[in-house]
Amino acid sequence: MNCIIASTSTVYGSDYLEYLQAPLKELFRDAQQILFIPFARPGGITHEVYTQKAREGLAFLNKEVVGLHQTENYKEAIKNAKAIFTGGGNTFVLVNQLYKNDLLHVLHNRIKDDVAYLGTSAGSNICGKTMHTTNDMPIVYPPGFETLGILDFNINPHYLDPDPTSKHKGETRQTRIEEFHTYNQTAVVGLREGSWLQVSKNNIILKGDLSARIFRTSQEPYEMEPGASLKNLR
Amino acid sequence: MNCIIASTSTVYGSDYLEYLQAPLKELFRDAQQILFIPFARPGGITHEVYTQKAREGLAFLNKEVVGLHQTENYKEAIKNAKAIFTGGGNTFVLVNQLYKNDLLHVLHNRIKDDVAYLGTSAGSNICGKTMHTTNDMPIVYPPGFETLGILDFNINPHYLDPDPTSKHKGETRQTRIEEFHTYNQTAVVGLREGSWLQVSKNNIILKGDLSARIFRTSQEPYEMEPGASLKNLR
Repeated sequence: MNCIIASTSTVYGSDYLEYLQAPLKELFRDAQQILFIPFARPGGITHEVYTQKAREGLAFLNKEVVGLHQTENYKEAIKNAKAIFTGGGNTFVLVNQLYKNDLLHVLHNRIKDDVAYLGTSAGSNICGKTMHTTNDMPIVYPPGFETLGILDFNINPHYLDPDPTSKHKGETRQTRIEEFHTYNQTAVVGLREGSWLQVSKNNIILKGDLSARIFRTSQEPYEMEPGASLKNLR
Repeated sequence: MNCIIASTSTVYGSDYLEYLQAPLKELFRDAQQILFIPFARPGGITHEVYTQKAREGLAFLNKEVVGLHQTENYKEAIKNAKAIFTGGGNTFVLVNQLYKNDLLHVLHNRIKDDVAYLGTSAGSNICGKTMHTTNDMPIVYPPGFETLGILDFNINPHYLDPDPTSKHKGETRQTRIEEFHTYNQTAVVGLREGSWLQVSKNNIILKGDLSARIFRTSQEPYEMEPGASLKNLR
């Protein structure tokens, strides 16, 4: 495996994908073309507009970026791709499209094999066992919540620490993830904006400047520092 | 109909249900007993613990509070209730239990008839046409997202205005609701904490000190002031 699984596409004060330029040069080094999966449609934008945004964000690589929606046969396009990027947006919308086009299995196999894969936000969420720990609004009803299972745990992207000054009574992110553990055993990685997981054949390393918050049913939540391995987390 | 559909059970700096004491005295005036639906399990607490919390929050009324989980036949208990309170928590968990016990129809009929109904947060969400606009994490997979349809629109409880100082790149609430409108026509009421809808046979009135934010597919989001009627919103 050869993946970057990132909390967000964009960090505060910088452009789309800018903070990931160095690792993306390495990730996509051997690919001539990058297949972009635009199904998550952030803000409801079209597949075409979203693919153009990805194309501009990846322009520093000087590679061709092709939207999956432009291809004649989605399964074949994924099977033949050397590099794939699934962009963020709404995880329910993304997963719904992957189910309806029967793409979960083929995408899983390509990532488990040798494709260079970039996921951001919703595109990272789907690398976990399920999408039960997305932050997104359930604006469509997908056929299931099981996702790619590239990782043996779940991702919570855009992880946010509780704001001690808040007067809002809605649940904190930590409370939500702890509620998840009332019904599920799967470990959850709260991945803060600016963090990513570097997945290779033999390891999963936390990258970026920030620690990640780890939630397991058997113990109190704890922090994991950059450079640490998550390969045994489940 | 005779309902209070509230954004939250608790506002900052006050106790559980305290800010609703005056309208609840009126709502539950004629009931000897209140049937509490504890299925949303906030923080994963048990039905028993949650019912005790509701009992304590409603103690000022001097009525008996019975948890639905304590009754032998859920459908009969709802059919025979004169007053029902559905507490907040996780909307996916609540809706899942309502589907699995086949209670949506009987609850809908009792509310449309003459039961005095209180909903807070998740218990208000289910009064809309669907749960597509919940803020909750999808920690379980319910058989569907259709809900009671007591209202001709959807509720977004705990509505939060964007924080202009935030460095977080996750979606704002408004962005999420606008994404919902890419796939759905249903109007959405962003109900701020401290606001509630007073539903009677002939009207739906916004109550509390704050305005509500209204989202429709056909126009820009706008504010509706306390005292305004939402009976024609759809």
